[in-house]
Amino acid sequence: MRIMVLGGDGYLGWPTALHLSLAGHEVALLDNFARRGYDNELGIESLVPITTLRTRIDTWRELTGRRIGCYIGDLCDAQFTYATLADFEPDAVVHFAEQRAAPYSMIDRKHAVYTQQNNVIGTLNLLYAIAELNRDIHLVKLGTMGAYGTPNIDIEEGWLELEHNGRRDRMLFPKRPGSFYHLSKVHDSYNIEFACRIWDLRATDLNQGVVYGQQTPETTMDERLATRFDYDAVFGTVLNRFIIQAVIGQPLTVYGGGGQVRGIIDIRDTVRCIQLACENPANRGEFRVFNQMTEQLSVLDIAETVARVFPGDVTIEHLENPRIEAPEHYYNVTHTKLVDLGLEPHLLSDTLIESLFDITKQYAHRVRAEAMFPTVNWRNPSQH
Amino acid sequence: MRIMVLGGDGYLGWPTALHLSLAGHEVALLDNFARRGYDNELGIESLVPITTLRTRIDTWRELTGRRIGCYIGDLCDAQFTYATLADFEPDAVVHFAEQRAAPYSMIDRKHAVYTQQNNVIGTLNLLYAIAELNRDIHLVKLGTMGAYGTPNIDIEEGWLELEHNGRRDRMLFPKRPGSFYHLSKVHDSYNIEFACRIWDLRATDLNQGVVYGQQTPETTMDERLATRFDYDAVFGTVLNRFIIQAVIGQPLTVYGGGGQVRGIIDIRDTVRCIQLACENPANRGEFRVFNQMTEQLSVLDIAETVARVFPGDVTIEHLENPRIEAPEHYYNVTHTKLVDLGLEPHLLSDTLIESLFDITKQYAHRVRAEAMFPTVNWRNPSQH
Repeated sequence: MRIMVLGGDGYLGWPTALHLSLAGHEVALLDNFARRGYDNELGIESLVPITTLRTRIDTWRELTGRRIGCYIGDLCDAQFTYATLADFEPDAVVHFAEQRAAPYSMIDRKHAVYTQQNNVIGTLNLLYAIAELNRDIHLVKLGTMGAYGTPNIDIEEGWLELEHNGRRDRMLFPKRPGSFYHLSKVHDSYNIEFACRIWDLRATDLNQGVVYGQQTPETTMDERLATRFDYDAVFGTVLNRFIIQAVIGQPLTVYGGGGQVRGIIDIRDTVRCIQLACENPANRGEFRVFNQMTEQLSVLDIAETVARVFPGDVTIEHLENPRIEAPEHYYNVTHTKLVDLGLEPHLLSDTLIESLFDITKQYAHRVRAEAMFPTVNWRNPSQH
Repeated sequence: MRIMVLGGDGYLGWPTALHLSLAGHEVALLDNFARRGYDNELGIESLVPITTLRTRIDTWRELTGRRIGCYIGDLCDAQFTYATLADFEPDAVVHFAEQRAAPYSMIDRKHAVYTQQNNVIGTLNLLYAIAELNRDIHLVKLGTMGAYGTPNIDIEEGWLELEHNGRRDRMLFPKRPGSFYHLSKVHDSYNIEFACRIWDLRATDLNQGVVYGQQTPETTMDERLATRFDYDAVFGTVLNRFIIQAVIGQPLTVYGGGGQVRGIIDIRDTVRCIQLACENPANRGEFRVFNQMTEQLSVLDIAETVARVFPGDVTIEHLENPRIEAPEHYYNVTHTKLVDLGLEPHLLSDTLIESLFDITKQYAHRVRAEAMFPTVNWRNPSQH
């Protein structure tokens, strides 16, 4: 298949592009380097050094003989978006090209507006480009489990068979998102569902859990192929951050009691899920939703797992929660559709965590401990 | 109370400002003249001539001795939004300042993007301004019944007590919006609910039915106080359009079979509902939703009512539906909260329709029949 990976220079976009390429697909990626820009803005850096996109692509060609196409630009620039799709003629478009950090969206008004404008308008341009150029293109869109919030009922895969006053309907699962970033994903999902309904497009919305890990079989072929490993309080995901804290001898910082339960997924399963979604496309007119997670753990469970496995002393520190979220709650998620398509989950194991310890030790001299302390507060945005 | 009416130069914003002013409130309005701009862009005009905003405000002062403040600018300009709120110090903000026509949002990509950007970002700026300046300000936000779509279950007032697999929760009512305009209102509602949750704001979301009528007791005091009366296929609401078609001897154009049922409301009830919402504010932290409609009728019922009452021959013509909506469907809406606050609905009566016939006859020479023919097609946007 011809697959275009939007946001293909990012933490997950890059390993996904490699995985799809090695699986035999014709891959091109699109990126505007927004993610590298956030590093500059916030004064942070990936723990593992990453090479330029040009070097990454050249290295891949050198090692495997496989070409990856490359389009540099912004989805919010509609002319660029149309021209790129018209040029590459993809069968599927995998869309990672959004601002992805909840804390970043909550810094202040400007960052909230940027996040919603960038994510929602970029996706809207993409929907129109598909509708006008080729309605057969399968949109595989990255969303987040966080958009559901923590309802007191079971979380289904995107749709809910609902009974009310003796009548029934199948409706989009009601969400309760916890940041302006999460809200942007809810807005996207509504826009995409509508586009499938009126234009007969085909789309798969992937509500992804918190991703952990840094290596896939493809990225480990050469250190120039490494993907990002973020540990700061804005872009670092929770397990990755705990591991770095353990290695550098800092306490693991748990927000509040740590009773918040999250769906999680190994980076190796992420790239496999995308492949499964592409190779088994949604039907025309179908807005299909998968919950892309493999297990659920509380934040405290995650911290305790890291502390138990780490060969040395680790303490856990509870910080006042800068986010607004339920401290203790019901959480039960249906996530069978990707398994039905063939996913064989890597569950969180000591082996994985140990390999992360090794990577972290190798680059421990690059850690800036102060970057892990949360400075974005949900209650009080930075003033205008 | 001090009440700021955003979009105070529009079809409903202007009569609302007058109604609140006469009720004794200190009123200021904010507008960027976007609505008059759409007239220029599309080459259409209100059937009833409207004066400049300056003349409107001066006339009101001359007749009643009451001042209405005036701020000219755009909510998408955050500095202007903050400065305006800081200057006027409102107790309540009534927010009509959004692009409000579904067909306009469906013209092409550019209009869809404009609608979502204008509506969602303008409201987001407003939420931040309230959060940073005074969290006690009550936001009264105009939404639309159309955001619900036509589910096969009873439509509740914004929230749904839901049971699923033996567990219960109270969640936002799942929506199924029918245009990028309607989607912008869904996005707004989600953003506002979140702001109430994290910043303890108070908000009332008014899901308004299709408004009909052109006169309120205040606007009829002087012809210089008249509000708009739109009849074109983009901005005209369905009953208003049928009346004009009847008067000028054109067939009433029903989209499809006309089995689509809609909630409707008299313009005199709209202004009263806003007053009730302002004078009975939501609690701090409460996201309150009212379904602001008084009765429900099918589009064909509305056409037949107009045909029956009109003193002359009227034919009904069924056009292919340019929208994508269910031709026949269940529709049952709960709308008791505004009545509980004191609303005494004006139901659609022959008297009202007859008064609309009179206005229309007076200005029939201004009608451009071709403007009533739908040119925006949901299935096929104008090409890029």
